Amino acid sequence: MNATLSRRPLRRFWGWGVACEHLTQEESARIGMMVQMLGGQITDRTEPQVSDFTLPAPRIAPPAALAAMFSDTPLDRLNHALGKSYADLARMWLRQVPHVPDWVAYPDDEQAVIDILDWASRHNVAVIPYGGGSSVCGGVEAAVGSSYAAAVSLDMERLNRVLEVDPTSRAARIQAGALGPELEAQLKPHGYTLRHYPQSFEFSTLGGWIVTRAGGHYATLMTHIDDLVESTRMVTPSGVCASRRLPASGAGPSQDRMVLGSEGTLGVVTEAWMRLQERPRYRANASVRFTDYKQGVQCVRALAQSGLYPSNCRLLDPMETVFSGVGDGSAAVMVLGFESADHPMNEWMRRALEVVRDHGGSYDAESVERSMRDDGGEEHRSGTAGAWRQAFLRMPYWRDPAVGNGLIMDTFETATTWDRFEAFYKGVRKDVAQAVQQATGHPAFVSCRFTHIYPDGPAPYFTIAALGSAQGDVASALAAWREIKQAANEAVIKHGGTITHHHAVGRDHRPGYEQETPPLYRQMLQAAKATVDPQGILNPGVLIDPRDRQVGITGALGRT
Amino acid sequence: MNATLSRRPLRRFWGWGVACEHLTQEESARIGMMVQMLGGQITDRTEPQVSDFTLPAPRIAPPAALAAMFSDTPLDRLNHALGKSYADLARMWLRQVPHVPDWVAYPDDEQAVIDILDWASRHNVAVIPYGGGSSVCGGVEAAVGSSYAAAVSLDMERLNRVLEVDPTSRAARIQAGALGPELEAQLKPHGYTLRHYPQSFEFSTLGGWIVTRAGGHYATLMTHIDDLVESTRMVTPSGVCASRRLPASGAGPSQDRMVLGSEGTLGVVTEAWMRLQERPRYRANASVRFTDYKQGVQCVRALAQSGLYPSNCRLLDPMETVFSGVGDGSAAVMVLGFESADHPMNEWMRRALEVVRDHGGSYDAESVERSMRDDGGEEHRSGTAGAWRQAFLRMPYWRDPAVGNGLIMDTFETATTWDRFEAFYKGVRKDVAQAVQQATGHPAFVSCRFTHIYPDGPAPYFTIAALGSAQGDVASALAAWREIKQAANEAVIKHGGTITHHHAVGRDHRPGYEQETPPLYRQMLQAAKATVDPQGILNPGVLIDPRDRQVGITGALGRT
Repeated sequence: MNATLSRRPLRRFWGWGVACEHLTQEESARIGMMVQMLGGQITDRTEPQVSDFTLPAPRIAPPAALAAMFSDTPLDRLNHALGKSYADLARMWLRQVPHVPDWVAYPDDEQAVIDILDWASRHNVAVIPYGGGSSVCGGVEAAVGSSYAAAVSLDMERLNRVLEVDPTSRAARIQAGALGPELEAQLKPHGYTLRHYPQSFEFSTLGGWIVTRAGGHYATLMTHIDDLVESTRMVTPSGVCASRRLPASGAGPSQDRMVLGSEGTLGVVTEAWMRLQERPRYRANASVRFTDYKQGVQCVRALAQSGLYPSNCRLLDPMETVFSGVGDGSAAVMVLGFESADHPMNEWMRRALEVVRDHGGSYDAESVERSMRDDGGEEHRSGTAGAWRQAFLRMPYWRDPAVGNGLIMDTFETATTWDRFEAFYKGVRKDVAQAVQQATGHPAFVSCRFTHIYPDGPAPYFTIAALGSAQGDVASALAAWREIKQAANEAVIKHGGTITHHHAVGRDHRPGYEQETPPLYRQMLQAAKATVDPQGILNPGVLIDPRDRQVGITGALGRT
Repeated sequence: MNATLSRRPLRRFWGWGVACEHLTQEESARIGMMVQMLGGQITDRTEPQVSDFTLPAPRIAPPAALAAMFSDTPLDRLNHALGKSYADLARMWLRQVPHVPDWVAYPDDEQAVIDILDWASRHNVAVIPYGGGSSVCGGVEAAVGSSYAAAVSLDMERLNRVLEVDPTSRAARIQAGALGPELEAQLKPHGYTLRHYPQSFEFSTLGGWIVTRAGGHYATLMTHIDDLVESTRMVTPSGVCASRRLPASGAGPSQDRMVLGSEGTLGVVTEAWMRLQERPRYRANASVRFTDYKQGVQCVRALAQSGLYPSNCRLLDPMETVFSGVGDGSAAVMVLGFESADHPMNEWMRRALEVVRDHGGSYDAESVERSMRDDGGEEHRSGTAGAWRQAFLRMPYWRDPAVGNGLIMDTFETATTWDRFEAFYKGVRKDVAQAVQQATGHPAFVSCRFTHIYPDGPAPYFTIAALGSAQGDVASALAAWREIKQAANEAVIKHGGTITHHHAVGRDHRPGYEQETPPLYRQMLQAAKATVDPQGILNPGVLIDPRDRQVGITGALGRT
């Protein structure tokens, strides 16, 4: 039952993390408290087992020459059936997985990717590039409609090597299937790091980051993976589309920028030259309290416009400090950090703290001093920044049991300009809270933090926690979630944000994406796609209108 | 003869600048010396006059409702016949202007742009968006072939207003036809600046900057206009394509990034929300000498990778110091500057000078100190940085008489990674010098400076000066230039650069562009274009293959 062609540690197909890893007692207790706080109760639910699912037989046989790279074991198929959104977890708890891929393909090399796309094009088989499978917007679900002969999930895990390092230009050629820890481990002996740490770091790939325009470590400047890409190599059904390795170019609309955000609809990225960083040797960290959230916002704006470019500048609203365990809800907290491999950041922090004081922020001067004395190592690891980061990385683990107990835990993220932010913050929280109340009959906890900041606006990231069903009924929680997600999408667009700052469009954000972009532009994308994917086999239903809209693309939102 | 519908100060149709402005005696003497140095001699040539040219009658009448915005005066048509490349100037001196537009249209507002594109689509009229007409790669020449009923040059000068300023987000909505000085004058009362200063600043427009991905003031970070664009509004023959105002987004491949670099082939940008800067209050400047150019290069690389982000960091090779009058050719010179509206840059400069000393650079410590004491104002205006900037802005003026006397003065720019730079610098200079020797029989002066720098590579900018013909014969100089330009294009590509870092592709760089990009990607662009410009009326022959390649697109390079 548990056979797999994957060579990696076995993933938990129905949730986050690897199968053999479990929550600590402390974490379990904390989740229990949270569920109780929201009015629910923890009961012992049986975790989903592979044997709980009856999968239809694969509809088509893979080509003989490639058969060794294709798996149709239930475990492999289930592991590639969904992403990791709230709705994906809920459907796993409900044992309702409507669109399981017929096969999972693990190509050995780029030629195999070419061959698979060639075969798929000729046999009307939809191909869903899987990346690390951490999509939270329906980006990897094989919900392709019935007009395809079959659907194959393409897992690039075997293309996970760092192929070349150029220390002069500080860049490396890396295969797209490498997970975060895999590529960092290979870069480390060279003294470099990509320093791209999305929340999904452990379970997402370079290729996935590129095609979803993932957001990473840096709060300013190199906020997206976009900024770290030097060149890309993408296999399309019509051939390979590779760009030249360049630090910059002004020759026409950028080819790499067409690949960035294409979400597997144009081709499969096989490798990329990426810009690297040296490991930071100097740090300066501060944890700042604002009793007035508005002043905190103004302070972040001033910092974003100062030209100081902090590497970390995350403002947590009072509710968010509770969720991430760095506060009690009485004040907003800003986690502020500078880092450099070249020079001490004391002067940068000194000026930033002037800005902080001008805006009524308070902080422990001694701890800031200490962070600069020991180059921030200790504060970085164990101070507020460390606590925040720890919570940040563990959050997806905590969600699994919470969802199984009828909780709705979800996040959505966006960006908007500073002039609109105050009304945006108020409007979005109000609309979403109303939707939660209406859909569940229970109050919502809606919190917000900034993940990235720009001179002209922040990227706010909202977390919703609510009791979806008092009896812990996941089905009614999921039904409620559909209404809430729709309301959140609409609120973000209505109040002037983007449907996604770094989570991608996938299926779940397409309604908002279609409001945000003019039809003409989407037609241009469709025309570009038709050039490289004339049969429309690549990730149909994601980002771009599927070729046959009537057939019905049912993702998490149940949208037809 | 000199009638025009333009409301701006009359441009010199055959060269740089406004018609009533002339070189100073000192400048004239300097040009004389340069021509002599190269082995030629200055003779008094009659400058081109409108009456020297016999223009064919316009082939089609504009629509009655728009007629008041259309001009067919010889002056207007000549003023829009060519850009400002070496070949454009030479052809003006030769009175050979093969592709004069039938009409010049000056739309009053966006609706007029829509109406003009609509009329042009229906009547098979090619439309060439003119911007400020400063193209140096054949981007505004009406060389559209004979398959069109006529060609109209579209001049957006009447859409030149700053419509809105958002001080909170530090952004402004600006019409695309505004020249650099026009938009800066309107921003100044608000206390802001766009701070985008290409060499063509006086005679190029916001819209032109956007569609050619112009390079500006900042040597690091916000190097291209790309980085300053918050949203765009573009009129296409199929409708308006506007993006949402956002500080950032990860929703699909970026729409604005499709407009950036489109060079008037997809539509006409009518306005954009642009990110603004506060005027700098703090500066720190240094002029650094390197007797070893290689060490200078290594120093710039270290600075580019330091995270200090100097606003100015231009390394001039020894020959370039002569051309721009800041050295005698015995050493390379680096013009280094930091600026901020928020904080003194002393600490930044202090660390940068450590890096400089580590690489054997020398500088006048007292003058650096002074630049920081008076916030860099004086050094900025009158020191090496000031001298360099003055030469930079006047250079295009000096070229006019030089070209008329048979000199070849041309520049080309590119970008490449640091690991390749040493071989690139050597290879490109060698190939180009050989081509000059072969084409003219005279030696070439080839110099290089960095216009922008990145962690993974520099953007080198080469200047060529050579005697095209000892007798001052412009025709043979132009013939030689064609060979030299072709060799330069090929050298840049062969040695691993991009065909353009910020001058755009236009017609003259298309051969290199086609080597640099995969055919598949260009087909994607063509498909996107066909969506918004189904009749193919927009700037045919630029960037993207013209619809009818057989017809023959003859630009400056004489390429069919």
